[in-house]
Amino acid sequence: MKSAQTEDTLKENIATVRELLTQRKREEETEDQRSAENQEATKSLFQYQHWLELQAILKPLHIGDIAHILEILPLDDRLTVWQQVNIFRRGDVLLEVSDAVRENLIQSISEEDLLAALNLMDADDLAYIADDIPEDLLKIRQKTLTTEDKNWLRRAMSYEEDSVGFLMSNEMVVIYDNDALKDAAKILRGLEKLPIHNDTLFVVDRRGILRGILSLQNILLNDPNLPVHNIMETDIVYFSPQDDAGEASQAFERYDLVSAPVISDRGKLVGRLTVDVVMDYIRDEATEDVLNMAGISAEEDLFAPILNSARNRALWLLFNLGAAFFISQIIGIFEATITQLVSLAVLMPIVTSVGGNIGNQTAAIIIRGMTLGQINKENTTYLMRKELGVSALNGLVIGSIVGIFSFILYKNIALSIVISVAMLLTLILAALLGLLVPIFLHRIGRDPALGSSVIMTATIDSVGFFIFLGLASIFLVK
Amino acid sequence: MKSAQTEDTLKENIATVRELLTQRKREEETEDQRSAENQEATKSLFQYQHWLELQAILKPLHIGDIAHILEILPLDDRLTVWQQVNIFRRGDVLLEVSDAVRENLIQSISEEDLLAALNLMDADDLAYIADDIPEDLLKIRQKTLTTEDKNWLRRAMSYEEDSVGFLMSNEMVVIYDNDALKDAAKILRGLEKLPIHNDTLFVVDRRGILRGILSLQNILLNDPNLPVHNIMETDIVYFSPQDDAGEASQAFERYDLVSAPVISDRGKLVGRLTVDVVMDYIRDEATEDVLNMAGISAEEDLFAPILNSARNRALWLLFNLGAAFFISQIIGIFEATITQLVSLAVLMPIVTSVGGNIGNQTAAIIIRGMTLGQINKENTTYLMRKELGVSALNGLVIGSIVGIFSFILYKNIALSIVISVAMLLTLILAALLGLLVPIFLHRIGRDPALGSSVIMTATIDSVGFFIFLGLASIFLVK
Repeated sequence: MKSAQTEDTLKENIATVRELLTQRKREEETEDQRSAENQEATKSLFQYQHWLELQAILKPLHIGDIAHILEILPLDDRLTVWQQVNIFRRGDVLLEVSDAVRENLIQSISEEDLLAALNLMDADDLAYIADDIPEDLLKIRQKTLTTEDKNWLRRAMSYEEDSVGFLMSNEMVVIYDNDALKDAAKILRGLEKLPIHNDTLFVVDRRGILRGILSLQNILLNDPNLPVHNIMETDIVYFSPQDDAGEASQAFERYDLVSAPVISDRGKLVGRLTVDVVMDYIRDEATEDVLNMAGISAEEDLFAPILNSARNRALWLLFNLGAAFFISQIIGIFEATITQLVSLAVLMPIVTSVGGNIGNQTAAIIIRGMTLGQINKENTTYLMRKELGVSALNGLVIGSIVGIFSFILYKNIALSIVISVAMLLTLILAALLGLLVPIFLHRIGRDPALGSSVIMTATIDSVGFFIFLGLASIFLVK
Repeated sequence: MKSAQTEDTLKENIATVRELLTQRKREEETEDQRSAENQEATKSLFQYQHWLELQAILKPLHIGDIAHILEILPLDDRLTVWQQVNIFRRGDVLLEVSDAVRENLIQSISEEDLLAALNLMDADDLAYIADDIPEDLLKIRQKTLTTEDKNWLRRAMSYEEDSVGFLMSNEMVVIYDNDALKDAAKILRGLEKLPIHNDTLFVVDRRGILRGILSLQNILLNDPNLPVHNIMETDIVYFSPQDDAGEASQAFERYDLVSAPVISDRGKLVGRLTVDVVMDYIRDEATEDVLNMAGISAEEDLFAPILNSARNRALWLLFNLGAAFFISQIIGIFEATITQLVSLAVLMPIVTSVGGNIGNQTAAIIIRGMTLGQINKENTTYLMRKELGVSALNGLVIGSIVGIFSFILYKNIALSIVISVAMLLTLILAALLGLLVPIFLHRIGRDPALGSSVIMTATIDSVGFFIFLGLASIFLVK
């Protein structure tokens, strides 16, 4: 075996890159202390040597590895490494990195550099990252495309980001249904470059209508002189460009697909969807849920500048702050009650804290079910009954514990009953909200996870405090 | 095209299954009201007819579709549908459903039924679900395996659940390096069934040592009389059975793999890892993060019985409850202070509510970074500086807003300064915890997401109340 890029060698490479970067910084610092006259000359010499070393490390690396290294480097180091990537590979690297890192790179590199990378991309790749490219640069690049590629790019850019059309590629191997199996090898040889994940050829008739698929395996196993339509499979999974990418990714999982044809309304073959793109989509979608639940609106670069990160998270923090003010006003209604019985202030966070946890648990279960396409109108009622049952059960147990505990502390049976009842009611409300908030967000066309935790906690807190302090003001104080 | 299982036809099928199930229930209810004498006969006739209809719907469905239908049905309906699945397909369905649904099915169906399904599974499949099968049944099934299969099963069961060894399969096509390309077709024809995702053949020498891989594409494109070792690729990605499944899945994404060889320490080919299994793993891992953050320990069936769900979520709720008691005791220390200045009780939830949100945001970013393998010792310090910066910035803004707001409400400048400072300190602490709690959980070998939200909120609440009320008792009351 010539070489094998395992995790260990990747880790070694990352360590070397890091070392080079630190070394360079240290030397730059030393240089600053030298006399100004020969500083410039030495600096460029040092740099030149480091660049060569860095280039030598990057050269044999897989594009995916270079992208990974860029992902885990702070911003300035990221730019340093990018500049040493071979100019012919930069386009591929730009495609491979995450959205957040791509945005950051495009902002940091010079227009000239970016245009050079764009010029090496085909229409397919351009469409994928078009949203991130400054419009004027995209226009310059478009001018040099063939008419066919221009059309593809225009069409691809018109699809929604979460659609199959946006994710599909125009790289595919097509064979006519009247061809013989042996023609497949000829077609493959005639291609400039073989498409990735090319497990099947797509079979069309003379009008371009999809007729079936032909696996490489079947070509190998059958008489090369047989016509394609005798061997091709016709019971296949295909998509339309308008299909939702999430549903398509579930289909890829269910039917264990590697690639699938995308056809127009009239049955014409228009593109191909491959498992690598689907896998990236699944990863993005699922990790987004984690961020969205916590109240982070967009994908955020781990190493984004402080100001960007702060801005990205501010929206939901401000919402939360507004909610907190509202909650404090609700408590304010009962100021007189609390003054009479200060133990209420001591006990009240117990009610809402456990409530918030129950709400988050329910929401997490529901959001996961939605991501997996398991929730629909028919089973919502069933799920509501179930979640209410779970929280009523947990509410009874937890309410009793809290009642006993508060009795031990304050020897006040009425107070214990009030907090137990408030607890039970709040937990049932929490479960209901955990179910309804994601479903509501989904119905109004939002991501069900986005801010669900913040919205829910705010509602549970305000209602929870109101129930507890309200009951207390009725039954405990005069 | 003969037929194509698109999302729409799947949805139609699900609707029909649902309709049949409701219809049956309605009829059962009507039957209950009839005279007892001829009830039995009618019932079985009705049922028989429904079974046939259900079987007719299920028969042409892909295994993945049947699994999906089972996932979204409540427990009793799930069992009804399962019983109408063709006995020869039940094993595959059992493999395809999620862990939670599999567990539920295995608990609900009779031993006889389960054993029949197990008998149709090969050693590979058995290893994958072995943990869920009652030990005595597994032993009965094992007796009928060949020695080779028994060994495979024993070895496969010995690997950790999150390792490549656990996920790999023994279904692969192997060719010797001295064979000619044309032998590949012979080997493929000789197989009882073709392995899934068979894009490449694995090339070994006479001792079974992996020498390279040979893609079907290369077989098609080259002279069939050439020896395999002239054409095979040797620069390949391979894994060891002990490798972490998470890292392997990242490698599949990075290098766009469909299948990859797994080799022993001595270089012997021992198995194959395929993209369908990796994709399932990615999905499970990512959706688990959402559940774990909210404090749900295991994967939970959307339709699990109420008691099971309640038990599954109780652990972290009880932890939360304990923490809430602790927090209330901290507030209790300051009872006298609150009695003197009841506005403290009104304002205190603002401090901790925003703190909890900041902590969750930071934790979400860190947990996602960990899942993507982007966080290591070298960049932790950098991230800590960054997250502290973000929260200090947001803390200053939010602290000022809260200060101004509380001044408008209470016209007490000292109180406003106290709450602003408490806010700033709590938010910085929250960011620190959002970073450190997941890292700590990861270091002690736990899932970084598991309960992180609960642990963090508890700490932020207790310290936040302590800071606010503590400062207040020093500076505001006498």
